[in-house]
This record gives sequence, structure tokens and C-alpha cells, in this order.
Amino acid sequence: MGRWEPNARGRLVEAALELYSSRGYDQTTVAEIAKRAGLSERTFFRHFTDKREVLFGGASEFQEQLVRALDNAPVALPAIDVVAVALEAIAGGFSERHEFARRRQTIIAENAELSERERIKLASLASALADALRRRKVSEPAATLAAEMGIAVFRVAFERWIRETNQPDLPHILRGSFEELKTVTAGK
Amino acid sequence: MGRWEPNARGRLVEAALELYSSRGYDQTTVAEIAKRAGLSERTFFRHFTDKREVLFGGASEFQEQLVRALDNAPVALPAIDVVAVALEAIAGGFSERHEFARRRQTIIAENAELSERERIKLASLASALADALRRRKVSEPAATLAAEMGIAVFRVAFERWIRETNQPDLPHILRGSFEELKTVTAGK
Repeated sequence: MGRWEPNARGRLVEAALELYSSRGYDQTTVAEIAKRAGLSERTFFRHFTDKREVLFGGASEFQEQLVRALDNAPVALPAIDVVAVALEAIAGGFSERHEFARRRQTIIAENAELSERERIKLASLASALADALRRRKVSEPAATLAAEMGIAVFRVAFERWIRETNQPDLPHILRGSFEELKTVTAGK
Repeated sequence: MGRWEPNARGRLVEAALELYSSRGYDQTTVAEIAKRAGLSERTFFRHFTDKREVLFGGASEFQEQLVRALDNAPVALPAIDVVAVALEAIAGGFSERHEFARRRQTIIAENAELSERERIKLASLASALADALRRRKVSEPAATLAAEMGIAVFRVAFERWIRETNQPDLPHILRGSFEELKTVTAGK
């Protein structure tokens, strides 16, 4: 193992975001990220498998948290409310990451391959939610529909949250978006 | 231009589906598809840009039809009903393609890369629907939510349609799935 580098991971993320923003994701190499962070490539690869993982490394942890929150939701709730409760429960943890999320989203939106990767991650999140609902004995197609609705609402709320600058509250925006979903679906 | 080959496209599709099913998509080459169809590789490339397009070549036509159907839907309808009307309008055209759709879906479900491609195509379909709704002056997030729900419902209905063997009716299944969506979203 190499020597300990203070906050190596945070420095690598910051260096990567700066380079992805200024010169573009495709034009940035791992060597350049490491150099800008004042660290070695070896240290980079102790924290990330590749340059894409700097942007998507949190996805599996997010999925695990979400499934756990869903498993812990009250039994008597309808499927759509189980999904809403689970999403709101973990949305609270996002507040410190607003600045990172905003910069990350700009980089992803400007790159077709990264945008596709983001969509795939969201689809796999929806599949994991549907699996967890079926474990709660929610039948099909209700499980798939509730999971897909939840992820669509989350995406809409997340994008609104990112655009706001005055200490926006993701759980609050999420609740509002679920209300909009109900209005839209009822055809009002 | 080469000589005219009777039903070259249909023969290539049939040969490709047979090979993708029997030996796997990744293990099949364009040369093998052409050979099995009794045609040249050159003829293959007159009809498809690559072996993936045999499975996804219809996607852009489908998107155009769907957007056109949405543009033609009655003005006074709520957004979710506009989406439902548009999807039902083109779902009727699927009845002749049941066997192709069933075989295609099995091949896609068994291959992670193809499944991702299918998800990306559905996401781009949802984006095109949301764009078309905004042109009809549907505001956000209603446009995005109605479009995403429409595609989720279509996916659920399509998978049910594929599994049924006794002359299933996609528009009918689709109507039922929209009803399920309303029930699930209302939390009943």
C-alpha cells in the first residue's frame, strides 16, 4: 500500500470535476486528474476503477440505501406511498451534496455517453425498487409501475432541486412532485 | 447497385434472429447472417448499418409515428390521455409483428448490452413525447411525468402482450395498463 494522502478522494473528485468542466470529459485523462490533484495515478486507481466512476461511484450505495429504506417502510402503505416514503427518507442526505450534484449534472448533460449511462443507472434503480416491492407482495404490474413512477418523480424533483440556489430542500420538492404525479395521472 | 434480391430484408432478419437465438448475439457475425440468408455481406449493408440495427432499426420510425399521433390527438384532452390516445393509435399496427417482437425480446432480455440499448431507446422515446407535449403547451413537470408514465405503461403492456399467445390485442392491454396506472398512483 502507498502512503496515506490527506483527503485523496475529495481532491481527486474536485480535480476531475474541474477538468471535465473546463476541457470536457472525453478530453480528460486519469493522469491529468491525478496530476492536478497532486497525487499519483496509482492513488487514483485505489479510489476509482476509471474516470467514469468519479461521476457514478455513488450509484450502488444509493441503490442499497433506497432498497433498505423501502424494506423498512410501514407495511400497510399502498405501493406508491412506500416508494415515496423511501425516496424522501434518503433525499434528506443529499443536502450537503448540492454543489457536487449540480456540477456533476452539468457535465453529464453535455455528454451523450454519460447521459445514457445516467439513464441506465436510473433504470436499474427502478428495477431494484420493483424487486423490493415484489418482496413485499406487491403484484405486477403495480410493482413495476410504482417503481417507474417513483424514479420519474425523483428525476424531475432532482433536476428542480439542482436548479435552485437558495438552500433548496429535496424531500420537500419530492413531496410536491409526487402530488403533481397524482394530478397528472388523474387527468386533471 | 447490385441485383435485386427477392425479400432480401425479410430473409436477413429471419437469418439474424435464428442465429442470435441459437448461438447468441455476441457470437454472430454479419458474414454468417448473410450466408444463412443466401445473400452477400454487401446486400446486408444495403439494408442495415450493423448487426444491432436488425433489432433496433424500427425505433426511429416508431418514434416518428408516435409523435405524429400525439400531434394529432384532440386538443382538449389532459396530457396523460393525449399520451394514451397516441400510444393506442400506433399499438394497433403491432398485431402482425407479434412473432417478431416475441423473438426479438427474448434475444434482448438475454444480453446486457442489448437490454441497455433498449432502455436508452425507451428513454429517448419518452423525451420525444415530452417535447411534443410541451409543443402543445403542457407545462413542466407535467409534460415529463405524463411522457415517462406513458412509456412505463407501454413497456408493461408490451411485455404482457408478448407473453400472450392467443391473438392478444395490444391496444386493449394498453388501455387496461393505463387503468392500473391510475389505480396505483391514486394509492388504492
